[in-house]
Amino acid sequence: MKRIILASTSPRRQALLERLNIPFEVIGSEVDEDIAVENSPYERVKELSYLKASAVAKDIEGEAVIIGADTVVTYLGRILNKPSNRAEAIEMLKILQGKHHTVYTGLTVVYKDENGNSTSETYVDGTDVEFTNISDGLIEKYVDTFEFSDKAGGYAIQGKASIFIECIHGNYDNVVGLPIPLLYKSLKEHGIDITSFWAE
Amino acid sequence: MKRIILASTSPRRQALLERLNIPFEVIGSEVDEDIAVENSPYERVKELSYLKASAVAKDIEGEAVIIGADTVVTYLGRILNKPSNRAEAIEMLKILQGKHHTVYTGLTVVYKDENGNSTSETYVDGTDVEFTNISDGLIEKYVDTFEFSDKAGGYAIQGKASIFIECIHGNYDNVVGLPIPLLYKSLKEHGIDITSFWAE
Repeated sequence: MKRIILASTSPRRQALLERLNIPFEVIGSEVDEDIAVENSPYERVKELSYLKASAVAKDIEGEAVIIGADTVVTYLGRILNKPSNRAEAIEMLKILQGKHHTVYTGLTVVYKDENGNSTSETYVDGTDVEFTNISDGLIEKYVDTFEFSDKAGGYAIQGKASIFIECIHGNYDNVVGLPIPLLYKSLKEHGIDITSFWAE
Repeated sequence: MKRIILASTSPRRQALLERLNIPFEVIGSEVDEDIAVENSPYERVKELSYLKASAVAKDIEGEAVIIGADTVVTYLGRILNKPSNRAEAIEMLKILQGKHHTVYTGLTVVYKDENGNSTSETYVDGTDVEFTNISDGLIEKYVDTFEFSDKAGGYAIQGKASIFIECIHGNYDNVVGLPIPLLYKSLKEHGIDITSFWAE
């Protein structure tokens, strides 16, 4: 069986693959996420997912599938990255509260054959997320849980932020960090059927 | 502190409350789910969530909050309940594949005071869910995982069915089984602030 490698140390992405019974290894990439900041959100997640998957792929010998992903939160064209501290998280949540924003995830899958040749496919999915009105007090209480840490936009839709996310339009797992239907499709087109991991 | 009781044995609903650090007990209700089948989906989940919460509430002594919920999958006005076997699950997924349907969850919260007096609030939320085209072969493989068991419509959005759910419009947790923002709001209006459970 081909090795399947997730080029991301995000526990949320790992949980999504585990849920599907996919056997995978984790190899984090050391890509500088600042380099692509000037691009549009769409181009940025495309480029970063490709850079992450490629960086890991070049060190792998033999047949392997390498999955790279990058997720950003955008509001009116502005990219909200991972807040580096409490104050930044509060600032981001104050921007997002009471409004809807878009979350983009770029997904690159690199397919490497036994001769070291590789092809890759890159996809982007966008999901609209609507926040209710959140008081400054609630933002403080949320940020005090430190759930914002390592999360684009400073929140986790699958966590305590669920009390103020009324509605999304699009794919939910894409907000968590991986557009699962696109990953399923790409793997299937390359001879890897996720459902084959479901047999008991 | 008031007792908080979830009148549902659904592990998914329990996981949603656990995620929010809510301290709760589980007391399943013995409500006959067939009684309200003739109603519209909207009226059905309202009524069943109320019946479930009330059935548990009447046996509770002292101050308590009782949470009841009922979730149905509907397609073109037809209610798809929990499939009772493999063949029914296949039939339901064949109806849903390649189309969008609506999931309704009714939520009733009963607030009981120390004198045994109670008030209740009932809410309904609807979420549109879009399935990709699914081959008969994929439906068979999905049903073989038995994930359909005890799930309205025969699928779990938060499980392996995520490979064929491209898109939703509305609240995700409502599809899982509880409209969390509505629960947060109702509890808050009755003096129970979920965020108070977040303090370490």
